[in-house]
Amino acid sequence: MKKSLGPQCLLFPTPVLLIGSYDQEQKPNLMTAAWGGICCSKPPCLAVSLREATYSFSAIVKRKAFTVGVPGKHQVKEADYIGTVSGRKVNKFAETGFTPVKSDLVDAPYADEVVFVLECTLLHTLEIGLHTLFVGEIIDAKSDTSVLKDDGSPDIMKIDPIIYDPAHQGYHGIGPFLGKAFSIGRK
Amino acid sequence: MKKSLGPQCLLFPTPVLLIGSYDQEQKPNLMTAAWGGICCSKPPCLAVSLREATYSFSAIVKRKAFTVGVPGKHQVKEADYIGTVSGRKVNKFAETGFTPVKSDLVDAPYADEVVFVLECTLLHTLEIGLHTLFVGEIIDAKSDTSVLKDDGSPDIMKIDPIIYDPAHQGYHGIGPFLGKAFSIGRK
Repeated sequence: MKKSLGPQCLLFPTPVLLIGSYDQEQKPNLMTAAWGGICCSKPPCLAVSLREATYSFSAIVKRKAFTVGVPGKHQVKEADYIGTVSGRKVNKFAETGFTPVKSDLVDAPYADEVVFVLECTLLHTLEIGLHTLFVGEIIDAKSDTSVLKDDGSPDIMKIDPIIYDPAHQGYHGIGPFLGKAFSIGRK
Repeated sequence: MKKSLGPQCLLFPTPVLLIGSYDQEQKPNLMTAAWGGICCSKPPCLAVSLREATYSFSAIVKRKAFTVGVPGKHQVKEADYIGTVSGRKVNKFAETGFTPVKSDLVDAPYADEVVFVLECTLLHTLEIGLHTLFVGEIIDAKSDTSVLKDDGSPDIMKIDPIIYDPAHQGYHGIGPFLGKAFSIGRK
């Protein structure tokens, strides 16, 4: 029997994403977002939703670009901190010790210490309510060579991403491999 | 040093979602989606992207409603199977043994055996490319009482959601608790 919980923002899992952008003074900034995900295979696109009140919002609208970094479990404190302060007041790169790297493809920075990053140009914006959905076209995915498998693709266990639990505002790690997709369910 | 992987659809984690809809004959159907996530807090909304070629696409456009179920680790075979066949040819509820339940709030079904479900009405559609993004307003979240904590909110460890790894098309479980959000990163 199911119990009604009301109209709540609950989903399992949600990601922990570090969104990189430049402000008007070219100061690099990061924000933490859990409201996001892949939204198209061709062209490869990612959606992330921001409140208009955030410092990153206007930066992304002006530069029409952003990066999406996937922090690892060992960076959970930095990822959380980045989500609790505003780039209006703080230089989050300086505070976390993260090194800003200017993307060579889009007008946005990312943190060198974050092993996996997507470089995106702003393709669409869709105002929904408190949040506006930004669709970014993935111009490139970049990965530290240390987290690549022999086949050249990133190893999710080496990236060791963080999972956000919106029900109890907690962070979790990734669990063990369960099986191959498009395979384990075939009879 | 980061290596360029090209414009690829990679993100960690992505979810495994069972999207429920009715076709024209009122036959309940499910599809598996990994391209989705929460996209607005107020009103609470979820985005999920579908290819126009899927059977669910036209069903959702016509009914203006869908459900989003979060299968547990023990249902990984069913979730995978549902992503490998079309509702045009197969009754996926019958094949998996899942029991269709008609939502009392939106014109769409969900699987009774899936412990957590969102009931959504279609609020926006945004054509991106191969995929079209559907924004659903979450009218209700429903959860089996067996996965609720004492505070009445779902326990992510009891839901035991599946994580999809798009880099190697694999499924993973959820890992251990790492810390409290808006807390662990405060100095």
